[in-house]
Amino acid sequence: MTLSRSRRWFLLLLGGLLAATLLATAAAMAAGAGAPARTADPLPSWNPGAARDGIVRFVRQTTDPASPRFVPPAERIATFDQDGTLWVEQPVYPQVRFILEKVPGAVTTRQELERLAATALSGMPLDTFKADVRQWLATARHPRWQRPYTELTYQPMQELLGYLRANAYKTYMVTGGGQDFVRVYAEEVYGIPPEQVIGSAGATRYGYDSSGRPFLTKEPRLLLNDNDAGKPEGIQLMIGRRPIAAFGNSTGDRQMLEYTKAGDGARLAMLVLHDDARREYAYGPALGLPDTKVGPFTQGLHDEAGRQGWIVISMKNDWKRIFAFER
Amino acid sequence: MTLSRSRRWFLLLLGGLLAATLLATAAAMAAGAGAPARTADPLPSWNPGAARDGIVRFVRQTTDPASPRFVPPAERIATFDQDGTLWVEQPVYPQVRFILEKVPGAVTTRQELERLAATALSGMPLDTFKADVRQWLATARHPRWQRPYTELTYQPMQELLGYLRANAYKTYMVTGGGQDFVRVYAEEVYGIPPEQVIGSAGATRYGYDSSGRPFLTKEPRLLLNDNDAGKPEGIQLMIGRRPIAAFGNSTGDRQMLEYTKAGDGARLAMLVLHDDARREYAYGPALGLPDTKVGPFTQGLHDEAGRQGWIVISMKNDWKRIFAFER
Repeated sequence: MTLSRSRRWFLLLLGGLLAATLLATAAAMAAGAGAPARTADPLPSWNPGAARDGIVRFVRQTTDPASPRFVPPAERIATFDQDGTLWVEQPVYPQVRFILEKVPGAVTTRQELERLAATALSGMPLDTFKADVRQWLATARHPRWQRPYTELTYQPMQELLGYLRANAYKTYMVTGGGQDFVRVYAEEVYGIPPEQVIGSAGATRYGYDSSGRPFLTKEPRLLLNDNDAGKPEGIQLMIGRRPIAAFGNSTGDRQMLEYTKAGDGARLAMLVLHDDARREYAYGPALGLPDTKVGPFTQGLHDEAGRQGWIVISMKNDWKRIFAFER
Repeated sequence: MTLSRSRRWFLLLLGGLLAATLLATAAAMAAGAGAPARTADPLPSWNPGAARDGIVRFVRQTTDPASPRFVPPAERIATFDQDGTLWVEQPVYPQVRFILEKVPGAVTTRQELERLAATALSGMPLDTFKADVRQWLATARHPRWQRPYTELTYQPMQELLGYLRANAYKTYMVTGGGQDFVRVYAEEVYGIPPEQVIGSAGATRYGYDSSGRPFLTKEPRLLLNDNDAGKPEGIQLMIGRRPIAAFGNSTGDRQMLEYTKAGDGARLAMLVLHDDARREYAYGPALGLPDTKVGPFTQGLHDEAGRQGWIVISMKNDWKRIFAFER
């Protein structure tokens, strides 16, 4: 029942993505004077500008064997935050909505909520948890768009993920969200397999059911808080080498971007700025936008971006469209 | 200095491997009546028998799209223990020798030793630790063969790693050894990149040096004890999906093999039995061989292998040669 629902949802999503791809291709061909598909623009949802140029220049430099900044494929590691970088995080993180349904009551910070959730989920078989997440994703709707959260990924970032992978980059998610949660859908939604999803991670416990069959249950012990300094620490734990490109949108991504940029050779660090209230949301005190508890883009982050050569992506100016379903 | 030494060592190793490959190819061509290279035996160091047949049958079943047991490439995950499975673990684990040079004194169990080492290494920059390991590997010699430990890998297992990868398998190391230690050489020695090395893992701490440059230091806090039940738990933490093939040699690998075999569809679980005192070592109470603290192959493990359909590899009978340097 759960499985057939999630399959139906997956097929719908797949159909939607295929339709979106066909539309995008048709639009690109109409605009691009019939250029053959294999030389089609890999980033059709990006407007010309510093952000798009920075990406294309970086990829060319690192993949051209004649370039002094060439990087061997094994070292082409790119890491992406999720909430606010790959999909919508307002008005509350999608995972927080999921947790609130499991752990009702008055809670304040995300950290506190996750601690409570970890305790509540303790002893739950991992497979049961995954089925719950699948079920929730199939039915939950974003309050503004009335669409599944998995449709609220940013089309320009999806194109960026694909563009990097087409150039032999390994794309990783490095999210403050729960690792077990995000792994349920990351492969279908972003093309990122579970082994390339790093998130806040709790322990599991190995045991046997009554028929002697082994299974894993969730434990309340937190192994990795994958926010702030936890991001480079998690990258070391799970990847063991420094990324050469990193993408975020808030102070929680600061250390990941610093760590990425501090390595030798070609480096790319980018921050998504939410400055488009009409098509998505506008927030972040750095630009005089409202401050929110969710995804803070502070003045300090803005200043550091300038000092360190991180490229700020303006959703309003750099993105031709935000969602695949837009026309 | 350290770097140039490790490079020299790497070039030597590379030269050795190339020479070994050429010799193996020449031998295979002489034996194989001039079969073209691309149909050459992928497992030339394996004798015909149940172990070799089990491997080849499994790979054919899982990679032939017409097979009812076909597995999509994304799910082709194979996990390997290291000590006693991929390289020599007698008379003491190589890493224990490394640690003993850092933490001299009387210590008993491996776990206690690793705790002491974690404390001793606490606060050390990760890059310093890695350089130390490189340096040690370049100079340390095995007491019996007087060769670097990295030459004491099992040639049949190297061929197995390559055979699986040639069939789109992702090969992972899942070792009780230290993750940071093994990652230093796993890519050069086994073709296993750092992100596919899972080991006993300590935390790191993100910080800044006096010039503001970020770096990671080692912390005494153990995140994962990657032995016994810690192996499937570590696999869940780092990969997030169940392997379909697993290889070990001792009770510390039991749960990893159980977990692997308990999934649906084609599964392969194998145990290396050290029964060749002449060419390597013979130990393991299951076959009346001496019991050692290192890599116990107990009667219980042997019985479980029989019940669960795990294939036992006899080093003496199944392996034509053990090391690449043998002639």
